[in-house]
Amino acid sequence: METYNQEKIFEILSKKSEDKFIQIQRILSKMDSHEIAHCLESTPSEQRKVIWSIIDKSNEADVLSELGEEIQQDLFDEISNEELLDLVQNLELDEMVDILQNLPQQRISFLLSKMTKIDRERVEMVLEYPEDSAGGLLNNDIISVQQDSTLNLVLEYLRSIGDIPENTDKLFVVSKNNNFIGELKISKIISSNPELKVSDVMNDKPHSFMVNESDKEVSKFFEQNDLISAAVVNDKNELIGRITIDDVVDVIIEDADQNFLSMAGIAEDTFSPPARAARKRIVWLGLNLITAFVAALAINIFQDAIDKIVYLAVLMPIVASMGGVAATQTLTIVLRGLTLEQISNSNLGWLFKRELAVAILNGIILSFIISLVTYVWFNQLILSALIAAAMIINLLSSVVAGVFVPIILRRLNQDPAIAGSVIVTTVTDVVGFVSFLGLATIFLL
Amino acid sequence: METYNQEKIFEILSKKSEDKFIQIQRILSKMDSHEIAHCLESTPSEQRKVIWSIIDKSNEADVLSELGEEIQQDLFDEISNEELLDLVQNLELDEMVDILQNLPQQRISFLLSKMTKIDRERVEMVLEYPEDSAGGLLNNDIISVQQDSTLNLVLEYLRSIGDIPENTDKLFVVSKNNNFIGELKISKIISSNPELKVSDVMNDKPHSFMVNESDKEVSKFFEQNDLISAAVVNDKNELIGRITIDDVVDVIIEDADQNFLSMAGIAEDTFSPPARAARKRIVWLGLNLITAFVAALAINIFQDAIDKIVYLAVLMPIVASMGGVAATQTLTIVLRGLTLEQISNSNLGWLFKRELAVAILNGIILSFIISLVTYVWFNQLILSALIAAAMIINLLSSVVAGVFVPIILRRLNQDPAIAGSVIVTTVTDVVGFVSFLGLATIFLL
Repeated sequence: METYNQEKIFEILSKKSEDKFIQIQRILSKMDSHEIAHCLESTPSEQRKVIWSIIDKSNEADVLSELGEEIQQDLFDEISNEELLDLVQNLELDEMVDILQNLPQQRISFLLSKMTKIDRERVEMVLEYPEDSAGGLLNNDIISVQQDSTLNLVLEYLRSIGDIPENTDKLFVVSKNNNFIGELKISKIISSNPELKVSDVMNDKPHSFMVNESDKEVSKFFEQNDLISAAVVNDKNELIGRITIDDVVDVIIEDADQNFLSMAGIAEDTFSPPARAARKRIVWLGLNLITAFVAALAINIFQDAIDKIVYLAVLMPIVASMGGVAATQTLTIVLRGLTLEQISNSNLGWLFKRELAVAILNGIILSFIISLVTYVWFNQLILSALIAAAMIINLLSSVVAGVFVPIILRRLNQDPAIAGSVIVTTVTDVVGFVSFLGLATIFLL
Repeated sequence: METYNQEKIFEILSKKSEDKFIQIQRILSKMDSHEIAHCLESTPSEQRKVIWSIIDKSNEADVLSELGEEIQQDLFDEISNEELLDLVQNLELDEMVDILQNLPQQRISFLLSKMTKIDRERVEMVLEYPEDSAGGLLNNDIISVQQDSTLNLVLEYLRSIGDIPENTDKLFVVSKNNNFIGELKISKIISSNPELKVSDVMNDKPHSFMVNESDKEVSKFFEQNDLISAAVVNDKNELIGRITIDDVVDVIIEDADQNFLSMAGIAEDTFSPPARAARKRIVWLGLNLITAFVAALAINIFQDAIDKIVYLAVLMPIVASMGGVAATQTLTIVLRGLTLEQISNSNLGWLFKRELAVAILNGIILSFIISLVTYVWFNQLILSALIAAAMIINLLSSVVAGVFVPIILRRLNQDPAIAGSVIVTTVTDVVGFVSFLGLATIFLL
């Protein structure tokens, strides 16, 4: 369905037609804010701005809040400060702050200056916290109650509110000074005797997040404890908001997405303009250029050997490439183990030995095949033995690099996922070329 | 905390001490089921079985249900059929089925034969559906009501139940024949006039999942619509259960995990025994061996050139490797765009041109650097020009491969994430070697 409407919009856009905006408007009016956001994310920047200008005003706030950071920024130039003020005031606190964080300082100041004092103070409080902290996920749509109320009174209060916020599975119990002291599940309220007091049925050992806790810790705790919502407190244990599962799900999905992209040194959106995409990718390509020259230097040492036996140059990339794949496999296992906090000093030794065993097992099979093919191809027994030996050496080096490079990077407080694969494959390239060409120099020259 | 207890257990396990089991038992008794599961997942198989044998019986069911598939299977040999029957009967339906699905047919039949008729029929119904369908996520802890009841009656009914299942944000409204006709939010029940009827306040256009829908569709819909729970119906629109957000979060996390692992051709657990790990990885290594020989064949054509100008062999891996990195970047962008359904026929052309522009932009910068370094190294102007030209050719080929290989694989109903990177880097290896050595043959010999 989504894709169908989208395709139609693209088709109309590409045609020259007098009433094409009206046609698109008609399609957009049938789509919900999520579909429209998806359509904008699937569109190159130029058409994106055209579609944005046709969206119904009443939908703009919801659509904007669903867009990724980069795409929001792409559209900000199209939106005047006054329009933006209208837009953000229709949003939940965390969504509003998400948008503000992506604006230039000047525009933030303007928007803040136009808000009511209460709104401004709330927004300013959350703006202080980094996007990837519990504070960045904070919403202030909490319903709090006092512990000495009866459930009947609470029910009456809820009826007077009428519209209970989404994802409200519990109310928060606070003291007179707004200190967080307990959680009262909605299911408890409706299934308990209404004469009971809040303090009789509340959970008085509730979990709360500190406002500066990392969002990864928050999402882990939500996942492990199957939470729907949880309180956020400041360092005085004052209740300042809550986090809900829908925002946590977004954190989990964004994290996975970034992991996926960063493994290839990419940090841009699918439809980024070429200059931006090129800029974001060149770091990774440049790094690889350096390491490729390092590998070339290793080959350079053995010019003599290649000069005398030219097919060494034909075979040497095979040894290097197999080491690279094996190293990437070991690296992937270790990276995942580190992320899941499964690897510690006590089992690292076992893991290293297991990886060695895997390299030896697979090394025996693969080196048998490689030497067989080499023998059939070049009909030289010593050469076949050499390439097999070089590959086993390189598989063993891939284990050392794959296990220890990420662990050392982690100790140095570097992200092992980003630099890891470059370093590891450089190691196996160099070891692969040196071991194969070195053995050849010794035994064939 | 988690890690601390774990470290202590590993330390005690490694020592020779008379009362080490008692010491471990003491630590385990302070850990919750999640921590114990994490500890078992961070342990090689042998020690895992020792720790399992010490876990308190009352904890075993919860711990078992939190473990990954492979680790469950590792422990099944330690558990007799009678014990297993006790264990699974304490679990929710979806958890029970998850465990049963990993057992050999004989053990499933035994367990089913010992259950009550009602339980057996329920389990058998869910067992029919694949693990990765809505049916595989199904729970039957639904509370359903009739549309002509008053809210007061519903409240009374809820009080009589007492213990309302976790993640119950809504009740399901069914007709006399158990046809699913509406959703009644708990928040509606408590905030509305209790004299009203269910039909007055229910949502009569609720979303339901078909039991055979894929779990990816389910998780996407949950994420887009911020759901806590949703109904599952069969093809007669009869309500057969519900899916809750906690299970959806598990699906999202597992999917991301599998994506991460499969990019490197890995499919095993962090602490799998060596033989199993080796077996799962060799397919990928074997595939790479074939493609490495293909690249070697490409080099082989130019033996003559290398024989005459040996430093061609020194430089050729640089061209191949840069193409591989660029191709992986393009592939990653396209894979992600396909997964998010952002790429369609209407914008594929734009994306291809954008990638070409990126390749040309970065190609100009990188080829300038590469020719500069080559000139400084070998002091040959033509060689410098050749390597720059070869690299630009290879970057352009990386775009063609990176964009069209995943799209063709998808059309052929293959998973582009798995085979994609192998094919794409083979293309850039071959084009890299052939363009560099080919140009050298033409201009330098």
